[in-house]
Amino acid sequence: MPRYKLIIEYDGSDFIGMQRQLTGLSVQQTIEEAITQFSSEKVSISFAGRTDSGVHAMGQAIHFDLAKSYQPHQVTGAINHFVKPHLISVIEAEIADESFHARFSAKSRSYIYKIINRKAPLALMQNKAWHITQKLNAAAMHDAAQILVGYHDLSSFRAADCQANSAQRTISEIRVEQIDEEQINIFIKAPSFLHNQVRIIVGCLKMIGEGKWNKTTLQEVLNAQDRTKAAQTAPACGLYFYKVDYF
Amino acid sequence: MPRYKLIIEYDGSDFIGMQRQLTGLSVQQTIEEAITQFSSEKVSISFAGRTDSGVHAMGQAIHFDLAKSYQPHQVTGAINHFVKPHLISVIEAEIADESFHARFSAKSRSYIYKIINRKAPLALMQNKAWHITQKLNAAAMHDAAQILVGYHDLSSFRAADCQANSAQRTISEIRVEQIDEEQINIFIKAPSFLHNQVRIIVGCLKMIGEGKWNKTTLQEVLNAQDRTKAAQTAPACGLYFYKVDYF
Repeated sequence: MPRYKLIIEYDGSDFIGMQRQLTGLSVQQTIEEAITQFSSEKVSISFAGRTDSGVHAMGQAIHFDLAKSYQPHQVTGAINHFVKPHLISVIEAEIADESFHARFSAKSRSYIYKIINRKAPLALMQNKAWHITQKLNAAAMHDAAQILVGYHDLSSFRAADCQANSAQRTISEIRVEQIDEEQINIFIKAPSFLHNQVRIIVGCLKMIGEGKWNKTTLQEVLNAQDRTKAAQTAPACGLYFYKVDYF
Repeated sequence: MPRYKLIIEYDGSDFIGMQRQLTGLSVQQTIEEAITQFSSEKVSISFAGRTDSGVHAMGQAIHFDLAKSYQPHQVTGAINHFVKPHLISVIEAEIADESFHARFSAKSRSYIYKIINRKAPLALMQNKAWHITQKLNAAAMHDAAQILVGYHDLSSFRAADCQANSAQRTISEIRVEQIDEEQINIFIKAPSFLHNQVRIIVGCLKMIGEGKWNKTTLQEVLNAQDRTKAAQTAPACGLYFYKVDYF
């Protein structure tokens, strides 16, 4: 029973999220139905990381098993055909060891959060970035963000509904980069993430960028271990699941 | 009677083009109706450059006259409000001299053409780039493109319906840049362009990038002064009107 590992890209705008739900169309349902259409097999796919409604992916990883053997390029071609017109694309596919698990074999995950920092509304980047009109200081955001790198209790940066047993997490890297006059990208890498962790951190970094908070404020928020001390959760549309690294 | 000069961004996907037409919604109609909604004046706007259906703009320029005086930020805010939900955004506005004309005062225009060069279909860049699956050599494309820079008869690179009296045109600059593993951007700057000129040039550069043509082929196509000798017209969705420079 071969196990297939796929790297996929998707535009999260029209999905209820990556996970199958009764309330709307998910990335999971769309791909599972495409697999069934070409293979006539019922499958359940596993994802490397959670993405909520509106969150995009450049390099999400998934795995699933099929009774029948196919060449990876056949699987790629068939899924890319049957997911149409939905904005999901299989970038690459391979046959993985049966011990491989998209979620549990992951060594680290990384996300990119895109901000467009300008007065004018977004046309070309609508639903693809957070539109912030007040001028941000990206260098100050980067500098303050380094406080969060390392092993910490991240209770201040987890959603109220987060189901993880512990809020102790390591953040491996945070980079805040001014890409051009308008665009700021925030790159965050960690072995694993709490629910809404990236979006709550980005919400706090916005406060720094606007000059409303300084490094000390962020340190206090971290120390408080209290979600109510942190800033607003940044909107889903700016967030991209970027990459998974496996052991 | 103040004249307003605006720089605008738009996603061309859902428009019949920039120019008002009976067959569908244009950028022109959408903006003119927005202006009428806030000012109660009927206006006719002029564009710096033509963009066909599906072609986008990062920095298109327009002008129009209003009987009543407004602050530029009032005009910006009102148009951005009334064009919703259409993907048009006024980036900046100013009051221009009455001799200013968005089209005739332009010294040069520049376009960017985006290519995503990979096997997998496009999800995040759907309708925002030309998807080319065969591997392209961007350096060879850049090198060959320099043949076109300068003053030439560009009859080979104009649409059959192009209404310009002469095909003699100067191309100031062409740069083909490998942006990342997947993306290639082609930047073209010129005082003015023939209809479909950028898209036909890009179609020819694709032939070079795929190794089907070499520099000599492109030189022969240029010399032929015959549209039938050039390659296919590249699709509209990869093209962005980038910028106008004024005298």
